[in-house]
Amino acid sequence: MKQIKRVLIVGGTHGNEFTGIYLVKKIEGFSSRKDLSTPNLIQRKSFECVTTLANPNAYKIVKRYVDTDLNRCFQLQDLENPNLSSYEAIRAKEIYQTFGTGGSQQADFVIDLHSTTANMGLTIILASKHPFNLYLAAYLTSKNSKVKILYSATRHQDSPHLDSICEFGCTVEVGAVAQGILDATLFQQTEELTYAILDYVEAYNQGNLPPFKDTLTIYEGIQTIDYPRNEFGEVQAMIHPKLQFRDYEPLHPGDETFITFEGEVITYKGSSKVYPVFINEAAYYEKGIAMFITQKTSEILTY
Amino acid sequence: MKQIKRVLIVGGTHGNEFTGIYLVKKIEGFSSRKDLSTPNLIQRKSFECVTTLANPNAYKIVKRYVDTDLNRCFQLQDLENPNLSSYEAIRAKEIYQTFGTGGSQQADFVIDLHSTTANMGLTIILASKHPFNLYLAAYLTSKNSKVKILYSATRHQDSPHLDSICEFGCTVEVGAVAQGILDATLFQQTEELTYAILDYVEAYNQGNLPPFKDTLTIYEGIQTIDYPRNEFGEVQAMIHPKLQFRDYEPLHPGDETFITFEGEVITYKGSSKVYPVFINEAAYYEKGIAMFITQKTSEILTY
Repeated sequence: MKQIKRVLIVGGTHGNEFTGIYLVKKIEGFSSRKDLSTPNLIQRKSFECVTTLANPNAYKIVKRYVDTDLNRCFQLQDLENPNLSSYEAIRAKEIYQTFGTGGSQQADFVIDLHSTTANMGLTIILASKHPFNLYLAAYLTSKNSKVKILYSATRHQDSPHLDSICEFGCTVEVGAVAQGILDATLFQQTEELTYAILDYVEAYNQGNLPPFKDTLTIYEGIQTIDYPRNEFGEVQAMIHPKLQFRDYEPLHPGDETFITFEGEVITYKGSSKVYPVFINEAAYYEKGIAMFITQKTSEILTY
Repeated sequence: MKQIKRVLIVGGTHGNEFTGIYLVKKIEGFSSRKDLSTPNLIQRKSFECVTTLANPNAYKIVKRYVDTDLNRCFQLQDLENPNLSSYEAIRAKEIYQTFGTGGSQQADFVIDLHSTTANMGLTIILASKHPFNLYLAAYLTSKNSKVKILYSATRHQDSPHLDSICEFGCTVEVGAVAQGILDATLFQQTEELTYAILDYVEAYNQGNLPPFKDTLTIYEGIQTIDYPRNEFGEVQAMIHPKLQFRDYEPLHPGDETFITFEGEVITYKGSSKVYPVFINEAAYYEKGIAMFITQKTSEILTY
């Protein structure tokens, strides 16, 4: 396989997810001390590493987006459509034209830094199941057994995410943390994970990858569940306290899932054990998603 | 003292604090089932209880506010100024003209329901130290020892809050919870606390107050501390992990308070033990507040 020549680190695809924004600010050097910037943090011998703040206007107003969710704006036909003029459509085109295929700084690998109000710990969402990404996942979980690997075959189907602009890549999703704040522990863990990804790319380029275990646990997204709502779309039940913050833990048929405002318990109606993630993510209320349902699978790695 | 004739319950003074918004929706009956509304929840014999969603447009966009913080819009001269035309200035005038002094539904007591990303548990912020409010605080802490009482003599000085429109009142502040989500446990606790406040008003009106302990613990706000920032106003350090979520716990001189992005620890420089609250509240980044510093005091109640 070809060498990775350029890696792109993205913060602030969502303007209220401060962890990635401040990590990119740290890497770039804050406004007041460009001279003190610390490119050595992301400098590796075999490739160039660049950074970008994806949605600066959303960050200014501490919102996920200005007009529309930037992380759903990377459909190829949209990126090639000169008539789309929402702020995020324009930013998506700028990002793609700079770092995407044929771009002025075309990147081979993208790390998109996100945070969530769900208790996702340190999650890597794979952009694809290409062996390069799978080995990355194996590398990261071997370095830190708390890292979880998430994948959804249908994730990019209708509204491709930013991490689809490069051949390889992943989304880093950390939580639980509220929007618009910094959690020092999660910040430091995200930073460590980001540098570990760069270390992997370096080891790969140098033909120096360490041996991996031959199986990898991947949580595979299979469907989403919405909150119970009335005919006006109003939420009629909350995540049950027994499920809140229990991302990646098994949910069995009959387990408490929601509780109505009157205290009525709604149980899980599925037919087998599943593993919910993105439980009670703030940004998904408007998307009609109370949680993602995943299955825990084992991927056999071949060498 | 005169009887309380009308109590106002306010949700959604901040549009992204769902706990109070959904409690008011529940009390009012959701849109689809006005016929099933449950006024009995807030009905007491000796007074009328009314509700309002204070900032519906901010709720629609799941933001704290549209133009400006509604909870800083209750200066009397602003309420009487017909030229102020921001969305929140207009809403403040409408709320005041309806429920304030001389209003069409003048209320004697207001409960303003808020939530915070800080770990404030169940906090009652007193609008004043009038004995009526102090006895309320004593009543609530006797019912639930986890309830904390907060007061700041300077809170209303520059920019009065909504709870200043009535003679008596309090702000209910619960957390930690991210903006834009519902936490079932906190929702239920807020509901219980709200009904307990109504029970207190009822007992007061009926001359039927239970005996109280003669001292009340009040956390008195004395100052705020901002994040360390550079000359461009950019945050340069995070709340230290040892302080995060430790609202109402003692902070001693020399204790870890912030940690910079480079890992440098910044300690508390005060000269005596204090009790920080509102630690890492998302909405206060823009206000230049990393936490409120309080002193733990004992208020002697007289009968």
